[in-house]
Amino acid sequence: ENPLETIPVRQALDRVNSKAIFAELSSPSFHSCAMDGIMLQSKTSLAAREHRPLLVKKKDYLACDTGDPLIAPFDSVIMAEDLVEKEEGVLIFKPSHPWEHIRSMGEDIIEKDLLFTAEHIFSPVDLSVLLAAGIKEVEVYKKPEIAIIPTGDELVSGEKPLQGGQIIESNTAMLEALAQKSGALVKRFPVIKDNKEALLSAVKKALASDIVVMIAGSSAGRDDLTSEIAQELGELLVHGIALRPGKPAVVASLEGKPFIGLPGYPVAAHIVFQELVVPLIRKKAHLPQEEKRKIKGSLTRRVVSSLSNKEYVRVQVGRVAGSYRITPTERGAGASLSLARSDGYLIVARNSEGFLRGEEVEVVLHNRLKNIDKRLVVTGSHDMVLDLINDLFAQEGKESVLISSHVGSLAGLQNLKDKECHLAPSHLLGGDGRYNYEAMDLFFKTEKMAMIHLVGRRQGIIVPKGNPKNIKGIKDLAGKTMINRQRGAGTRVLFDYLRKKENILAEDLPGYEKEATTHLAVALAVSQGDVDFGIGIEAAARTMGCDFIYLTDEAYELILYKESLASPEIQELIELTRSEGFKKRVKELGGYSTKMSGSIKFYEG
Amino acid sequence: ENPLETIPVRQALDRVNSKAIFAELSSPSFHSCAMDGIMLQSKTSLAAREHRPLLVKKKDYLACDTGDPLIAPFDSVIMAEDLVEKEEGVLIFKPSHPWEHIRSMGEDIIEKDLLFTAEHIFSPVDLSVLLAAGIKEVEVYKKPEIAIIPTGDELVSGEKPLQGGQIIESNTAMLEALAQKSGALVKRFPVIKDNKEALLSAVKKALASDIVVMIAGSSAGRDDLTSEIAQELGELLVHGIALRPGKPAVVASLEGKPFIGLPGYPVAAHIVFQELVVPLIRKKAHLPQEEKRKIKGSLTRRVVSSLSNKEYVRVQVGRVAGSYRITPTERGAGASLSLARSDGYLIVARNSEGFLRGEEVEVVLHNRLKNIDKRLVVTGSHDMVLDLINDLFAQEGKESVLISSHVGSLAGLQNLKDKECHLAPSHLLGGDGRYNYEAMDLFFKTEKMAMIHLVGRRQGIIVPKGNPKNIKGIKDLAGKTMINRQRGAGTRVLFDYLRKKENILAEDLPGYEKEATTHLAVALAVSQGDVDFGIGIEAAARTMGCDFIYLTDEAYELILYKESLASPEIQELIELTRSEGFKKRVKELGGYSTKMSGSIKFYEG
Repeated sequence: ENPLETIPVRQALDRVNSKAIFAELSSPSFHSCAMDGIMLQSKTSLAAREHRPLLVKKKDYLACDTGDPLIAPFDSVIMAEDLVEKEEGVLIFKPSHPWEHIRSMGEDIIEKDLLFTAEHIFSPVDLSVLLAAGIKEVEVYKKPEIAIIPTGDELVSGEKPLQGGQIIESNTAMLEALAQKSGALVKRFPVIKDNKEALLSAVKKALASDIVVMIAGSSAGRDDLTSEIAQELGELLVHGIALRPGKPAVVASLEGKPFIGLPGYPVAAHIVFQELVVPLIRKKAHLPQEEKRKIKGSLTRRVVSSLSNKEYVRVQVGRVAGSYRITPTERGAGASLSLARSDGYLIVARNSEGFLRGEEVEVVLHNRLKNIDKRLVVTGSHDMVLDLINDLFAQEGKESVLISSHVGSLAGLQNLKDKECHLAPSHLLGGDGRYNYEAMDLFFKTEKMAMIHLVGRRQGIIVPKGNPKNIKGIKDLAGKTMINRQRGAGTRVLFDYLRKKENILAEDLPGYEKEATTHLAVALAVSQGDVDFGIGIEAAARTMGCDFIYLTDEAYELILYKESLASPEIQELIELTRSEGFKKRVKELGGYSTKMSGSIKFYEG
Repeated sequence: ENPLETIPVRQALDRVNSKAIFAELSSPSFHSCAMDGIMLQSKTSLAAREHRPLLVKKKDYLACDTGDPLIAPFDSVIMAEDLVEKEEGVLIFKPSHPWEHIRSMGEDIIEKDLLFTAEHIFSPVDLSVLLAAGIKEVEVYKKPEIAIIPTGDELVSGEKPLQGGQIIESNTAMLEALAQKSGALVKRFPVIKDNKEALLSAVKKALASDIVVMIAGSSAGRDDLTSEIAQELGELLVHGIALRPGKPAVVASLEGKPFIGLPGYPVAAHIVFQELVVPLIRKKAHLPQEEKRKIKGSLTRRVVSSLSNKEYVRVQVGRVAGSYRITPTERGAGASLSLARSDGYLIVARNSEGFLRGEEVEVVLHNRLKNIDKRLVVTGSHDMVLDLINDLFAQEGKESVLISSHVGSLAGLQNLKDKECHLAPSHLLGGDGRYNYEAMDLFFKTEKMAMIHLVGRRQGIIVPKGNPKNIKGIKDLAGKTMINRQRGAGTRVLFDYLRKKENILAEDLPGYEKEATTHLAVALAVSQGDVDFGIGIEAAARTMGCDFIYLTDEAYELILYKESLASPEIQELIELTRSEGFKKRVKELGGYSTKMSGSIKFYEG
């Protein structure tokens, strides 16, 4: 099969040249006047001197404009400024040299010049050069075609409302975009059912393309089916690679074409595609392999990895106190949103057990690290208002951005103490009835700190719509099933404080050990009837259509070092939290008070 | 006019989101089994112990595969490995906790989650996230449309053979590609003649687009016409900017839309477009401004610039002896090929007179600096074989590449001495009748050097086809018009040596002062009948269809420090020059001898 094609020059941007190209024309293709004035034979002018001007007669010159072709036997141009016009001709005051003020034929490009070698990738200006050199078409390497086959009984397009057990097929959108960015054409197949005959027939059809990728469904043994098919149609090379996520990948050669079976979980599919398929595409396209953009920084959490696998850990990158801080995020293979929100991968080698907290590591970036110095690293308690701030920053054209990880109030304060974040959102009720002061004594006894009041929140018991268990307060909760928040979360601290006052033991609360890391996740579990109640903020209950039993008002504050207040990003943040736009958007969520938003308190140990 | 449009998610790659997007569905949208095994109510399993297995009856569990939806009231999964099957049911050996081995609804995405803020640029994985969250369409900023109007009586499409004074319209190909890469849609106009009515009507039509760019023809006063039109249709803001090349640019606001008049010379058009139009496009597209990739290095030549302009000087970048070396290339505004071959621009500020040789400067790159450490910087004499080597390197998949500038043999040796290049191609005839040794005594008396024989060349007199002046040898040249090579070029040294032996003075050779920097340029001038003769190699004469009068054989050698021989790139080069492929391609050019190609001589002062 011919790997080459001939295309018009104007379509050749970023395409790869297949063979040396020589100029067919010189450019310019004629000598031309480089000035407005007259063209003449230089020898006519030899006698002219400053003090003894020479009259050149009309028959011996021609008036010319810049760009006019030089007409033989003229070989020189005198600028209009250097002439005095007379009736019979022009006076000149010095001799003109041959080729003076003439743009020579071939000044830009000379016919037969080697313009571009094989394997050259055409840039915008190259296209102009080609056209100027008389070349209308170029022979380039064809873009490789990749067939992408999504499979799985559970997959649907999402056009109709989901039935139980159905999943929207979404992996192909990501893989198609990655393939196109890598220089491939994509042939996307419809979803194929988990049925050997159907799969076989799809793969056979896909072998018309240059590379075949099949995405396994998530059901049991599906990767076994992929490898069976590979064995039937060609040579199975690999079944299962030492990669996490991505272990169940399959690699085979079918009719001389690469066949890759990808796992169905989006993060695993992303990693295997990047690791195995993108390099293949670029090689077939004769494009250079992607340059990996890397960044070094210190880990804000320990990363434990198995010795038997190479592992890709999603991370976020921030710059705190002059150093890059690398924060590992979620590690589930199914968590596509955490992949979308991450900046890159920390790759843990196969023979490594991982890294210690604080260790210097290198990260491969997959996102452009936009304005890293304007990022505010926010680690601690979760609230939906943090997302909202980013949206407002973006809408107002600000470059500041919050990158937040939700570890609970206490862990956030520890991170702040270790200079691993800029801001720690916290709402820790102290024995003195005040929020955050007591907790800050634990960490910042000798420091000067500040607290930015973000919002007041109504905390309470979240119960399903209609309150089926008729819960009226804390004392009704014993024996009811629940979903809890993670250890160190302010909401958990609050709940433990309140239930102990009512002598309710953790053992009396089925589900006490089941943890969620956000208010919305708690409200979701309640709204689905998975549990009888959860504890959280009114805004989350409302958002998920749950009922809410009010318990207390609390201050949700951003803790920071006092000296940080001076930074432009923090100032931008404070200004935003005091704005009408902020208050309006927060009010729409419901269950918040913005009366104190943007006010600042100080703590001095 | 509405700057927004709604598009399907699968088309949203690299597009800019216009408003916050919240998840419409949770993903997964149901609780599912994370293992193959059974699902059961955890409370059923409470009594199970290692030493006292519990029988779970068939009515109390359901077999499940990974991915199966969890069915109420079951709340837990036990892995198949932890079961022993019996007739009446299964034996289990430890209690199962609520939610054990269950992938929770919303594990990836929770309904109502803020997925993407306004101004977010969609990446491949983002598309998957959107689909998984039940979102089928997104509202994004429209791509701005730019109208590009080429103008000029002299411009033609190049479909028909060129007539005298015609120029192929090629600027639009470059500008269209630059605009597309910057995120715009392009409306390209046909060439408009230099006629005010026609231009006015084209611009009026173009105002349907968001940005209008008009490229001036090269004829006199054309930028005045552009500014006249701008004044007639709106507000002329700028006519003539302090930029070189690019001075005649025009900026105006017509019906509230930006109108930019670009100069017709390609390099000037490129600079003004990059400087003024690309930032406009990106702003209208809500894309971040391009990050300028920069590199620092020392200048290999002095750069003189005027105080009254900001100047863009094209440069090539190489790495010699551990430092980046910046070499300015041609400065003519019309030289598009030199722009295509350059790596970036050295920008000389308006109030600067330029830079000294050796000064550290910063360069803005416009090309990916591919394999900079594999670049061999070649400075000195010119030969077409140098281009050919790059083509062979590329064809054979080698990463080495020569970047050559043609300054003549002598200047090349000076550069080598100053560690500003790796290789200096030279063919300087000494008084001893040997090539290069005598010249090397001038520079390298105390050094250990090597000379790689590249090719043997036949030097001679190049005359027009048919030899109209009947030139038979040097002695016939007095009084004939010629084109010379630049000072320090080996060919000029040879010619001066030979003509002096025949007592021919420079004054007897009209055109002796007219210099070309390559053999092909000399042969082109001869082939056009501009001059009676030039001196150069047989290959150039043949290529241009000229006649050739043989004078002498000479060695064209690459001079280098002996220690450089050890580098892998030099080894690759030597290997190549000894290959059959090289010899075959050189032979096709004609007029070369490859008998000695790749042989090495040493020089030790």
